[in-house]
Amino acid sequence: MRIVVTNCNTTQGMTEEIVRGARAAAGPGTTVRGLTPAWGPESAEGWLDSYLSAAAVLDTLRTYEGPYDAVVMAGFGEHGREGVRELVDVPVVDITEAAAHLACLLGRRYGVVTTLERSCGQIEDSLDTAGVGRNCAAVVGTGLGVLDLGDDRRTEEAFVAAAERAVAAGAEVLVLGCAGMTGLQRAVGEKLGLPVVDGVGAAVKLAESLVALGLTTSRSGSYAKPLPKRREWGRVGE
Amino acid sequence: MRIVVTNCNTTQGMTEEIVRGARAAAGPGTTVRGLTPAWGPESAEGWLDSYLSAAAVLDTLRTYEGPYDAVVMAGFGEHGREGVRELVDVPVVDITEAAAHLACLLGRRYGVVTTLERSCGQIEDSLDTAGVGRNCAAVVGTGLGVLDLGDDRRTEEAFVAAAERAVAAGAEVLVLGCAGMTGLQRAVGEKLGLPVVDGVGAAVKLAESLVALGLTTSRSGSYAKPLPKRREWGRVGE
Amino acid sequence: MRIVVTNCNTTQGMTEEIVRGARAAAGPGTTVRGLTPAWGPESAEGWLDSYLSAAAVLDTLRTYEGPYDAVVMAGFGEHGREGVRELVDVPVVDITEAAAHLACLLGRRYGVVTTLERSCGQIEDSLDTAGVGRNCAAVVGTGLGVLDLGDDRRTEEAFVAAAERAVAAGAEVLVLGCAGMTGLQRAVGEKLGLPVVDGVGAAVKLAESLVALGLTTSRSGSYAKPLPKRREWGRVGE
Amino acid sequence: MRIVVTNCNTTQGMTEEIVRGARAAAGPGTTVRGLTPAWGPESAEGWLDSYLSAAAVLDTLRTYEGPYDAVVMAGFGEHGREGVRELVDVPVVDITEAAAHLACLLGRRYGVVTTLERSCGQIEDSLDTAGVGRNCAAVVGTGLGVLDLGDDRRTEEAFVAAAERAVAAGAEVLVLGCAGMTGLQRAVGEKLGLPVVDGVGAAVKLAESLVALGLTTSRSGSYAKPLPKRREWGRVGE
Amino acid sequence: MRIVVTNCNTTQGMTEEIVRGARAAAGPGTTVRGLTPAWGPESAEGWLDSYLSAAAVLDTLRTYEGPYDAVVMAGFGEHGREGVRELVDVPVVDITEAAAHLACLLGRRYGVVTTLERSCGQIEDSLDTAGVGRNCAAVVGTGLGVLDLGDDRRTEEAFVAAAERAVAAGAEVLVLGCAGMTGLQRAVGEKLGLPVVDGVGAAVKLAESLVALGLTTSRSGSYAKPLPKRREWGRVGE
Amino acid sequence: MRIVVTNCNTTQGMTEEIVRGARAAAGPGTTVRGLTPAWGPESAEGWLDSYLSAAAVLDTLRTYEGPYDAVVMAGFGEHGREGVRELVDVPVVDITEAAAHLACLLGRRYGVVTTLERSCGQIEDSLDTAGVGRNCAAVVGTGLGVLDLGDDRRTEEAFVAAAERAVAAGAEVLVLGCAGMTGLQRAVGEKLGLPVVDGVGAAVKLAESLVALGLTTSRSGSYAKPLPKRREWGRVGE
Repeated sequence: MRIVVTNCNTTQGMTEEIVRGARAAAGPGTTVRGLTPAWGPESAEGWLDSYLSAAAVLDTLRTYEGPYDAVVMAGFGEHGREGVRELVDVPVVDITEAAAHLACLLGRRYGVVTTLERSCGQIEDSLDTAGVGRNCAAVVGTGLGVLDLGDDRRTEEAFVAAAERAVAAGAEVLVLGCAGMTGLQRAVGEKLGLPVVDGVGAAVKLAESLVALGLTTSRSGSYAKPLPKRREWGRVGE
Repeated sequence: MRIVVTNCNTTQGMTEEIVRGARAAAGPGTTVRGLTPAWGPESAEGWLDSYLSAAAVLDTLRTYEGPYDAVVMAGFGEHGREGVRELVDVPVVDITEAAAHLACLLGRRYGVVTTLERSCGQIEDSLDTAGVGRNCAAVVGTGLGVLDLGDDRRTEEAFVAAAERAVAAGAEVLVLGCAGMTGLQRAVGEKLGLPVVDGVGAAVKLAESLVALGLTTSRSGSYAKPLPKRREWGRVGE
Repeated sequence: MRIVVTNCNTTQGMTEEIVRGARAAAGPGTTVRGLTPAWGPESAEGWLDSYLSAAAVLDTLRTYEGPYDAVVMAGFGEHGREGVRELVDVPVVDITEAAAHLACLLGRRYGVVTTLERSCGQIEDSLDTAGVGRNCAAVVGTGLGVLDLGDDRRTEEAFVAAAERAVAAGAEVLVLGCAGMTGLQRAVGEKLGLPVVDGVGAAVKLAESLVALGLTTSRSGSYAKPLPKRREWGRVGE
Repeated sequence: MRIVVTNCNTTQGMTEEIVRGARAAAGPGTTVRGLTPAWGPESAEGWLDSYLSAAAVLDTLRTYEGPYDAVVMAGFGEHGREGVRELVDVPVVDITEAAAHLACLLGRRYGVVTTLERSCGQIEDSLDTAGVGRNCAAVVGTGLGVLDLGDDRRTEEAFVAAAERAVAAGAEVLVLGCAGMTGLQRAVGEKLGLPVVDGVGAAVKLAESLVALGLTTSRSGSYAKPLPKRREWGRVGE
Repeated sequence: MRIVVTNCNTTQGMTEEIVRGARAAAGPGTTVRGLTPAWGPESAEGWLDSYLSAAAVLDTLRTYEGPYDAVVMAGFGEHGREGVRELVDVPVVDITEAAAHLACLLGRRYGVVTTLERSCGQIEDSLDTAGVGRNCAAVVGTGLGVLDLGDDRRTEEAFVAAAERAVAAGAEVLVLGCAGMTGLQRAVGEKLGLPVVDGVGAAVKLAESLVALGLTTSRSGSYAKPLPKRREWGRVGE
Repeated sequence: MRIVVTNCNTTQGMTEEIVRGARAAAGPGTTVRGLTPAWGPESAEGWLDSYLSAAAVLDTLRTYEGPYDAVVMAGFGEHGREGVRELVDVPVVDITEAAAHLACLLGRRYGVVTTLERSCGQIEDSLDTAGVGRNCAAVVGTGLGVLDLGDDRRTEEAFVAAAERAVAAGAEVLVLGCAGMTGLQRAVGEKLGLPVVDGVGAAVKLAESLVALGLTTSRSGSYAKPLPKRREWGRVGE
């Protein structure tokens, strides 16, 4: 099984980290290939970045010739998943929803710990439209930017501090709220004594599950194929 | 990986059918063992049956010595999953929630087609508390009892007729709303031109996913271990 | 009018206390009879206990030959009420919903103070499905176990401390969140300066009301009579 | 126990009918006294009538010297109940909420059948704020005006026809959606084969219940006593 | 364009203040006329006052001969708007909903700061039924009565202190929760570094917008014209 | 006052039509300038188009040098508004939310009539996150594509037919669910006997209102300014 994982930003190093996280979760017969958009933001932090990222990721997949059996979208809280569902014929799993789906199986309420506070609202909206917002007790920020996650110790400390606020709000399970946090789940889980779900790993398993069951996106209603028409993907001649 | 699948009723033939469905979905290294409760209803249709079934399934697992790595609970819309989460130390996935989790990934709204109309309310409540009710467009009945599903052609026809009501209500994906329907997904999916999710298969894949990721139920808050105390599991001497 | 009150656990002393609470609330022509399940948990604290209790209470009523005019189910937040509605032909009132129904008439938002924190989620779900969750501001725990309520002074103090958290969350009325707290309403109400509703008393009055008005459970849809079929209530020969 | 029942309009004949309904439901020791506002609309049909009625009912109670132990407000879907809760020191029960509270105990979903379609929205809002809207499947109109309910046969037929729409929407129990329908519950219940709740009777029983339990409105927060200040109840000298 | 602004109480000085606020917001061709009810409460604080106010405002408009092109109802959280929509043929905008509509355009969540805590619930209900409650993070009180707002400095300080609680609950925009606060928006906005919406100004602009677009209340369904019938607006001969 | 109206697609003729609609609604001192994205889809129909459009509109505004006092985003149900709120310092109003805000003032429930059925889900999500979804009774499609709206008579007939479905679902007011329908409101409003809101006109009036009141987007929380970082807006050299 061939899974394509799309980074939501142009930072190649983050793609590599995500691919590592995805491979750690992938089953024996699964290969993972990471795609870095050729354009877009170097990190997605806020709505403007997120919409730019969505178009860039769609363009990346539109021009990627494959072959592949499933798509994992590795931008936590970022836009675009419904568009990718229209575009490709294989299952599409976004790490935001993936983490929430698994978290719902592990406790009555879950919480998300993300980077900047400004991203919390976007994540809440993303969980709501994915249909898994009901059991989310809180989405909280660590105050760290996406490109500031390199220092593992600082990130872990910030994560644990923020997680405690989510637990006070009722969370019994936590979710890593950024693709760049992948790999952290074990360390912070041990410190907190709680299950911690990494969206990248969760999405890989859900993508494998859908492929194994022969399931893919419905073409009825919302996610029909894009209509043939003229589209320009960026300024011509610039 | 060893998955235990619990039937919610005492009908051995149905356990076998469910185990066939589970094995068809299981990955290479996974073994599936079916458990039939020694007591309870011969089929679960309605709330009284469901509560009786919940206690019987809990008793079955309580006295089952294993070993196993995950539990799949194969009673669609039946009670008990939170109790099993308290009881065992491994991940627990109920086929109701499992089907809904995967269905959310395949379309914007899903519908459930079950047996008797009287079960629809129970299923709605089960989806709500599992946190995946928001994107459910409709739960509809076929009018067939659980033990009347043997005639595949009649079941398929009844399913397709009921599914059309769910589609009219907005469903883009369908869910088989009874463990006894396992295996039907391909045939009815082709007739409807829509993805159809079987909860048994879905739960097996989600259980495998959780085990592979090293995740299990949170002990914080709701699903703490049962307190040690005196409990009688059925009338003594009767 | 003859009301049967079912304890949710096997502790005879608690049944007696509940019967005292029920009789204190009952009108002149009402007789109250308490039933203690012959099996089940000695106290219901958590989901496993609750499902075991639900089956045991159903079995208790199934084999009780009556006659009686209404059933009061005295397990706060415990499962089973829909099953009992299927089983018997007379009105069924659960103390959880009963307390909430009356509390809604006394203030814009109410709060529930229960025993262990682990029970809060169950109570929230029970209020939601009963249709009275909207005006619940908070469900909070005292940290006391069900069988630790004997020391009235300690219980009152723990209740008042927890109630203050519910008031801070917006509660204007409080509910005793355990059948074993019955009788406490006056003392804690005076300390708090707020109305406090005891579910046992509330359920008795609602049961009397339904009987007086000639109303009983609808057989249309959800609560149709259980279908005739083979059911085993506990392990045969054990 | 002395219950005051306030009609929401100035039609004396309707007060008498409501009092008959209330007395039919009242327990042995309960006396019922009906109050007809000295001003307001001759029938309440729509928002303007409802707000006028609310002020007139408040004025009626403000100037009524009692003594009484509880207030029943007999305007289905009409405004004013929170104001009366501020005004008087005894329990206040509105027939809209009362019917819904009892209906929730009799089936998983209930429906309301009222007079004109224009009143449906008001009733929905009233149920929502009372905290019992969740399990309401539908509010439907018969097309009959409040003062057109005199012909019992026509009213019954219109009720049954409208009730069938509510049942199709999921209602398992029905509510008489107008104080002027009181007395009809038995006849239409038999025709429909479903429990039918009359709000007047329901409110009398709930008022008796609260008085018997020694409960009255919380003064904390929303329903504090009206502040002393200058108020004019209608145009001076006109 | 001629806008009539109705004060919800009988305090002429407050009408003048509101008219000043309305004129400050009105466009070049707009004239504003304030109406003070001839009866009702001297200030509206709580449900009793609010219902009395609703009837008095309806009576004021019913007997006002105009001409006018739109109505602005200047009682924050007070009742009556749906009745006025039935009564008059021109657009009707209530300052509660108006402030919320504009606040939704300025941030993801807004908060309301009002006078007494007892009014918070009424405001929440008013926002909900107006259809704009979803993005309201909090409604908080300053503890000041309506007629205590005269001391600008004290009011500003109390507003800022309460606003901070709303911000902690997620508000990114604030709303002045009393007509008598009109004019304060600039001062407190600067102190808080946040946009602050005054409902009086907001309602004037929305009323102008509807008139300019040729839009007025739908007569279909909820807000049909009041039926012709006998109505008394206050006690005859008193 | 200078309003910039952004078309969501690259079809210049549609920009012109939208500008005509905007100018028809604009007040005396308001100038309207239309912007057509240099890239993106020729019409936005579905999620892929919508995300591409969002990035293109952001790029258009990012590189537009103004000056201007407000932005109107003329893509019904299309993404991007939160990103634009981050980007510019002036008020931003999207025609989807604008139409809904005004519709809420005109009836208790509104309905949206759009182009293709596939767009309905997107519009529902957009209304929900804007905080105005509660009073939306239905979003229905006409089956016409965005670029098929040229034949006014056919469009009107399709609109009226679809509107009747929305009215049957409870709508009392209707909304034109596509920027390309601007101008149609009067004709279909007369045929239906209902107010019909055009989002373009509504957004112009709301933008004028915000500017007149000196209000603009909050920088606190969600819509903080985009962080300085490297962003590529389309493939370099392609």
